[in-house]
Amino acid sequence: MTTANQHTVVDDTSVSALLERGRRLATPVLREAVDRLAPPMNTVAAYHFGWIDECGRPSEADGGKAVRPALALLSAEITGAPPETGLPGAVAVELVHNFSLLHDDLMDGDEQRRHRDTVWKVHGPAQAILVGDALFALANEILLEPGTSEAGRATRRLTRATRMLIDGQAQDISYEHREQVTVEECLEMEGNKTGALLACAVSIGAVLGGADDRTADALESYGYHLGLAFQAVDDLLGIWGDPEATGKQAWSDLRQRKKSLPVVAALASQEEAATRLAHLMRTDAKKTQEEFEDFDEAEFATRAALIEEAGGREWTSAEAQRQHTTALAALEPLDMPAHVREQLIALADFVVVRQR
Amino acid sequence: MTTANQHTVVDDTSVSALLERGRRLATPVLREAVDRLAPPMNTVAAYHFGWIDECGRPSEADGGKAVRPALALLSAEITGAPPETGLPGAVAVELVHNFSLLHDDLMDGDEQRRHRDTVWKVHGPAQAILVGDALFALANEILLEPGTSEAGRATRRLTRATRMLIDGQAQDISYEHREQVTVEECLEMEGNKTGALLACAVSIGAVLGGADDRTADALESYGYHLGLAFQAVDDLLGIWGDPEATGKQAWSDLRQRKKSLPVVAALASQEEAATRLAHLMRTDAKKTQEEFEDFDEAEFATRAALIEEAGGREWTSAEAQRQHTTALAALEPLDMPAHVREQLIALADFVVVRQR
Repeated sequence: MTTANQHTVVDDTSVSALLERGRRLATPVLREAVDRLAPPMNTVAAYHFGWIDECGRPSEADGGKAVRPALALLSAEITGAPPETGLPGAVAVELVHNFSLLHDDLMDGDEQRRHRDTVWKVHGPAQAILVGDALFALANEILLEPGTSEAGRATRRLTRATRMLIDGQAQDISYEHREQVTVEECLEMEGNKTGALLACAVSIGAVLGGADDRTADALESYGYHLGLAFQAVDDLLGIWGDPEATGKQAWSDLRQRKKSLPVVAALASQEEAATRLAHLMRTDAKKTQEEFEDFDEAEFATRAALIEEAGGREWTSAEAQRQHTTALAALEPLDMPAHVREQLIALADFVVVRQR
Repeated sequence: MTTANQHTVVDDTSVSALLERGRRLATPVLREAVDRLAPPMNTVAAYHFGWIDECGRPSEADGGKAVRPALALLSAEITGAPPETGLPGAVAVELVHNFSLLHDDLMDGDEQRRHRDTVWKVHGPAQAILVGDALFALANEILLEPGTSEAGRATRRLTRATRMLIDGQAQDISYEHREQVTVEECLEMEGNKTGALLACAVSIGAVLGGADDRTADALESYGYHLGLAFQAVDDLLGIWGDPEATGKQAWSDLRQRKKSLPVVAALASQEEAATRLAHLMRTDAKKTQEEFEDFDEAEFATRAALIEEAGGREWTSAEAQRQHTTALAALEPLDMPAHVREQLIALADFVVVRQR
């Protein structure tokens, strides 16, 4: 299955190495940070990150791609600084990301994340709230610790991104209860939920390395559009992804009745399929989640086909490409070492062709 | 009824004027800050602060004593700066305080605050989590906005206080499920939950006014012990407070089976009454909250009498006095305008004699 931009040749090795380096350098500092939490919050956080299992035994569960820490370290190199300069930023951004996962899983009632029970499911809602709060506070603590003016500037940017993240979750919740969501509203929500923190990750290392505001803003622009490209591909994979590759059920976003980009783009089209899709969705909305999940697989296939027929798949694929182009354009005027630029480009390419 | 230190003559007018000034200067800035939140979070926050009612109509509900903003403004005056210098600190501290109220009410299942339904009860758990998160982020945003090194230092102190606040809530939750809590553990928990943020309020204005770390640390010490004195009196009022004055039910902390200072101090004593109290509490622990609330009033009176007989009331009253003394001792070595010192002393005196 192709998602978008199937003709790009992507240097997968370089992206894997980048992500691997991010995990290798950031994880020890992240674990040290989490160790600062008073019990039982340290244990609950360690479970969330996949370092221990439900019984407290050491484990090596999937802790996520850790793309944000990798970006923050690369970000420091943009200024010619060593990647380690970006470490407090890498850890802070990863802490904020996980604060939002803990709270969002509870708000959304999601029982599984990365093939394991979510924190609220295992340790109860109070711990999910509390540990989320603690990770958010810890992010600021780690970032402000050096006491430099760069640290202050980095924290301002992280705070702005966090506010956008929260705005995005508020929009996501309110859209669930609405019959109609426009493509623009969906893009704004995805920009807040995914773009803002990736933007912060790509600029935070540079800020810690002494980059000026103009450079940081341009990097944020790259990261923001990279996030939107990432999310567009995510929305494609959420409907047409290969369950073997994604680790999710087939048609997973359709099962959750998510008003993702392909859906809202399809509904906005003038095609006859859009009318039929809208009619089905109005009927679907009256069903309980249990009734809905009992659907025959063919029902989901029908909806996916209508979305494709109305142009939702093609539009989203083109949108991923447009965001990819905008992201790369933001990099152009910036001075940076050639190997860093190559990696930022490789990462953007990877985002649009990934299968999971 | 007397709580502690009944012989002190307290200048109530000066304390009222200080609290009134805090509300007058901080509220407009606080409202402006809350207006930055995306809908529906701005409305939910406005309901929480008592500015609108459940239907969105303007209201002037009790928004709390607002002692923290008042302290933050006075704190700026310690350095000779005008009170307005402390405004970003006043608003940030009040935002963090309300972030913790929103989340704690949900975690604790509290349905009422200041005689009104709590946010999670009116707007649902997701909004309580989300708006709490937003107020926390907003606190950092407001405080870091000036971009000065003082702002960075103030944010570090606020972050540390917030982490202690979260630690305190974690301890509070875990103590609920334990049969025994020591006096030391209770004091540590109360120091985290009440002392840390008051400490931050008393130092944050001074930090924004350019105070050095030694001065800020001494002010934090005053605020921390002021908080412990405040909490000791709160614990006394929670059992023996006059319902007419406190606005709470008689024996309110006993109804909630809170292991507050008078209770843990009574249990720690060698008195025979302590043994009888411990026995009753073990039986009580087996009851559901509903069964427990159906108790005859005389049952609560019996428990209160046992706590008093075992010395819990007297110990807590003396503890309030000890914390009051320690708080004032921390102020002594500091240089500050005479009228500011007088107000800090009046406030400490007020805290230990208040009836509500």
